[in-house]
Amino acid sequence: MNADLVQDGRAQAASQAGRGSALLTLNAGSSSIKFALYDVDGLQRRATGMVEAIGGAARFKAKDAERKWDDAIEAPAHVSALRAILEWLERDMAGVGIAAIGHRVVHGGMLFDQPALINDDVLEQLRTLVPLAPLHQPHNLAGIEAAREAFGNVPQVACFDTAFHRAHPFLNDCFALPRELFYQGVRRYGFHGLSYEYIAQYLRTHFPHHARGRVLVAHLGNGASMCAMRDGRSIASTMGFSALDGLPMGTRCGQLDPGVLLYLMQLGMDVKDISKMLYERSGLLGLSDGISNDMRVLLSSERPEASEAIAYFVSRVRREIGGLAATLEGLDAIVFTGGIGENAAPVRERVLAGMAWIGVEIDEARNRANETIISSGLSRVLALRVCTDEECMIARHTLRTAQLVVASQEAL
Amino acid sequence: MNADLVQDGRAQAASQAGRGSALLTLNAGSSSIKFALYDVDGLQRRATGMVEAIGGAARFKAKDAERKWDDAIEAPAHVSALRAILEWLERDMAGVGIAAIGHRVVHGGMLFDQPALINDDVLEQLRTLVPLAPLHQPHNLAGIEAAREAFGNVPQVACFDTAFHRAHPFLNDCFALPRELFYQGVRRYGFHGLSYEYIAQYLRTHFPHHARGRVLVAHLGNGASMCAMRDGRSIASTMGFSALDGLPMGTRCGQLDPGVLLYLMQLGMDVKDISKMLYERSGLLGLSDGISNDMRVLLSSERPEASEAIAYFVSRVRREIGGLAATLEGLDAIVFTGGIGENAAPVRERVLAGMAWIGVEIDEARNRANETIISSGLSRVLALRVCTDEECMIARHTLRTAQLVVASQEAL
Repeated sequence: MNADLVQDGRAQAASQAGRGSALLTLNAGSSSIKFALYDVDGLQRRATGMVEAIGGAARFKAKDAERKWDDAIEAPAHVSALRAILEWLERDMAGVGIAAIGHRVVHGGMLFDQPALINDDVLEQLRTLVPLAPLHQPHNLAGIEAAREAFGNVPQVACFDTAFHRAHPFLNDCFALPRELFYQGVRRYGFHGLSYEYIAQYLRTHFPHHARGRVLVAHLGNGASMCAMRDGRSIASTMGFSALDGLPMGTRCGQLDPGVLLYLMQLGMDVKDISKMLYERSGLLGLSDGISNDMRVLLSSERPEASEAIAYFVSRVRREIGGLAATLEGLDAIVFTGGIGENAAPVRERVLAGMAWIGVEIDEARNRANETIISSGLSRVLALRVCTDEECMIARHTLRTAQLVVASQEAL
Repeated sequence: MNADLVQDGRAQAASQAGRGSALLTLNAGSSSIKFALYDVDGLQRRATGMVEAIGGAARFKAKDAERKWDDAIEAPAHVSALRAILEWLERDMAGVGIAAIGHRVVHGGMLFDQPALINDDVLEQLRTLVPLAPLHQPHNLAGIEAAREAFGNVPQVACFDTAFHRAHPFLNDCFALPRELFYQGVRRYGFHGLSYEYIAQYLRTHFPHHARGRVLVAHLGNGASMCAMRDGRSIASTMGFSALDGLPMGTRCGQLDPGVLLYLMQLGMDVKDISKMLYERSGLLGLSDGISNDMRVLLSSERPEASEAIAYFVSRVRREIGGLAATLEGLDAIVFTGGIGENAAPVRERVLAGMAWIGVEIDEARNRANETIISSGLSRVLALRVCTDEECMIARHTLRTAQLVVASQEAL
C-alpha cells in the first residue's frame, strides 16, 4: 500500500467522520475502476466516473450535473487509480462527506448470498475465493484494501455478482463431475447478479404482472450472460463456474467443448497460454479474425468475418433462449440489457427474428427506436429493452447494509 | 500384427474370393468389437455378436436364427478379439463368404462426408485424425488393419460417425476461438451420425411428412447426443469437437465450463489425469457419487444421489431440446433412440413432462408400453420411440460403396 495514499485517506476519513452525506460506489475491473457518488438521502446520483486504461495510457473521466472531467493521469496500478478518485473527491467535490462505500465484488462463492459489511474476517474469506476468479477477484480486493486504508472507519460493503444466483436448484448449479468436486466448489455460480437484480427490481416496479412470471434477462455486453428468473428470483444462468462459460463475449469464448482444452494441452499449451487465449483472444475478437471485440465496430464492418462473428453471437443467444425457456417451461417476458442489449438494435432484431415458435414477435419500429417495449401488441411474450444500473444496485445494497448495521449497533 | 492371424485370414480370404454372399460389419470400441453378418441379397441380418471385455474377462457372444454362442475367450487385445470372430466365421458359419466388410469409424474429420472404400491412402488419412479422437480412433484403425490382413482383397468400407453432420452451417460448427484454430480442425464435428442417419431413413419411410420438417433426435445411451435435422439432414448436434461435449453420459461429463479445466490444471492435474476424469469418472457415475453409470441401476436405486444424477440428465436433455428447437425455429417431431432412449420410459416421460410450451404432449400409457408413437393425439409435435440400428446403416453403406466401386472398375 502506498504510504502517501494511506495518510491522505486517513486525513480525509477523519475530516469526514460523522458528516457523510454521500455513498461512493467502486467497481474495480482488470484495467479500470468505475465509481459513482450518490446522495444518501434519496439515492440521487450526484456524479459518475471512471479511471480507465490503468497500467497504460490512463485517463480519469467524471461528470456531474454541471461539470465534466477528462484528464490523462499516472495510474500504473489500481492503488494509484483510487488515489486519483480520492484527490478528485477532495478537490472538486469539497464538502461531500462519504458515509459509506460500496464495492462490486465478482465472487462471493457459496459464502455470501447477500451483500456483506466488510471487516477483516470478510476480507479474509474473500481472499480464499481468489482461485475461483483469479483474473477479477484480486482487483476487487485491492480496491477494498485501498479504500479501507484511505477511509478508515467509513463502513464498506461488498456487493457480489454471484449472490443473486445463490437460490438456484442443485441441478442448475452442478456439473456431471465426480461429486466431491461439487463440495469443493466446482459448480456453476452465475455472474452479472447486480445487473439481474436491478432488472428484477425494475420489473417489479414497472411490469409487476410479468415480474411474477417466467422471465429471461439477456445481459449482453463485453461480458455477456443470461439469467432465467421466476417470480423475480434467479433459477439458472448461462455462467458458469468461471466468467468464460455460456455466451461468446468480446474476447471470451463462451461455451466450449472440454475436449478442446485437452487437445490444446496435448499440443503443449500450458494453463497460462490457454487462459490468455480463452479470456483475451477469443469471443467476437477471435472469431472475427481480430477485427474487433466491439459489437459496434463489427456491425459497421463489411468483412465477412465480422458478419460471421455477429451471426455466431446471435445464434448462441437464441440457443440459450431456447435452453433457458425449457428450464422455465416457457416464457412470459424477455429483457435485453447491457451495452449490446441496450444499444445494438440490429442484434436484438436478429435474436428475436423467427421466434414466433416461442411466442415472441418483435415490433421492428419500436426496436429500432430503442423503446422500452420492443415486442408487438400481438406478441404473447413481452420483449423489453431496459438500461441496467449496477452502480445503483451497489448503492441500494450499501445503504441498506450499512444502515442495518448502524441500527443494530445502536440497539446494543 | 499377429502372424498366425494374417495367415489364417489370407487363406480364408483366398478361399472366399468370388463367392461372397455376406457383408460383415465391425464396430470396434475401446473394449469391445460388435459385429453382424448380413446377406448381400436383401440385407437380411443373418447373425450378430460381440466380443466384450477385451483386455479383461473377455467373452465371445453371438446369435443367429437358431443358435447362440457365449464363451469365455482369451482376448488381451483387439487383434485377438478379431481372430475369435474369424474363427467363429470359419467354424460355425461355414459356407458364408464375405463379400465386403464395413467398419464403423468414429472420426472422418473434414476429409470424409460419406463412407469411403479403404485403401492405403484412406488409412493414412484416417491416422492423421487420431489426435482428434485419441480414445476411439486407434481402436477403429486397429480393427481395419486386422481385417485387411485377414481378408486380403475383400473390399472394406469405412463408415464415419461424423459424416452425417458435414453439411452443418458454419455457425453450428465453429467455436468463438481465434479463427486459425477452426482451420486447424478445432470445430464441432458431431458424432453418432450412423444412428442419426438410420433414424432419418426410418422417418422418410414411416413418417414421410414429419421427415421433411424440423426433427430432433435424442440418441441417449452410454454415449449420448442430440441432433437437429431439417428435411432429414443434420443441421446441428450437441457434440462436439470431442465425444465429451453436450449431454452428460454414463461416465462422460457433457457440457462443462472451460474454466473448470483451467482450475483443475492450476490444482496440478495434467492432461492425462483430467482426460481420465472427464471420460471415465464423470457423467452419471460421477454425479451419482459412484453408484453407477447405468441408467437402469440408477432408476432402481433409492439413494438421493441416484435420483439427482437422473434429474440432471433429464434437465440437460430438456435444455438441449429447447436450444436445438431455437436453432430449428420450432419443432415438428422428436425421436428417442439409443439404449436409454429406447428402454427407459421413465426418462422419456420426465424429459417430455411440462413441454406443452413447445407443443409436445406425451401419452403416458403409450410411452410406458414402449410404443413407437408416444405423444398424444392432441400433441402438435409428434414424439416417437425408434430403435436405432447402426450395424444396418454400416451394411447399407458398405453394400452401396463397395458395389459402386466394382461398377466403376468394370467400366474401365
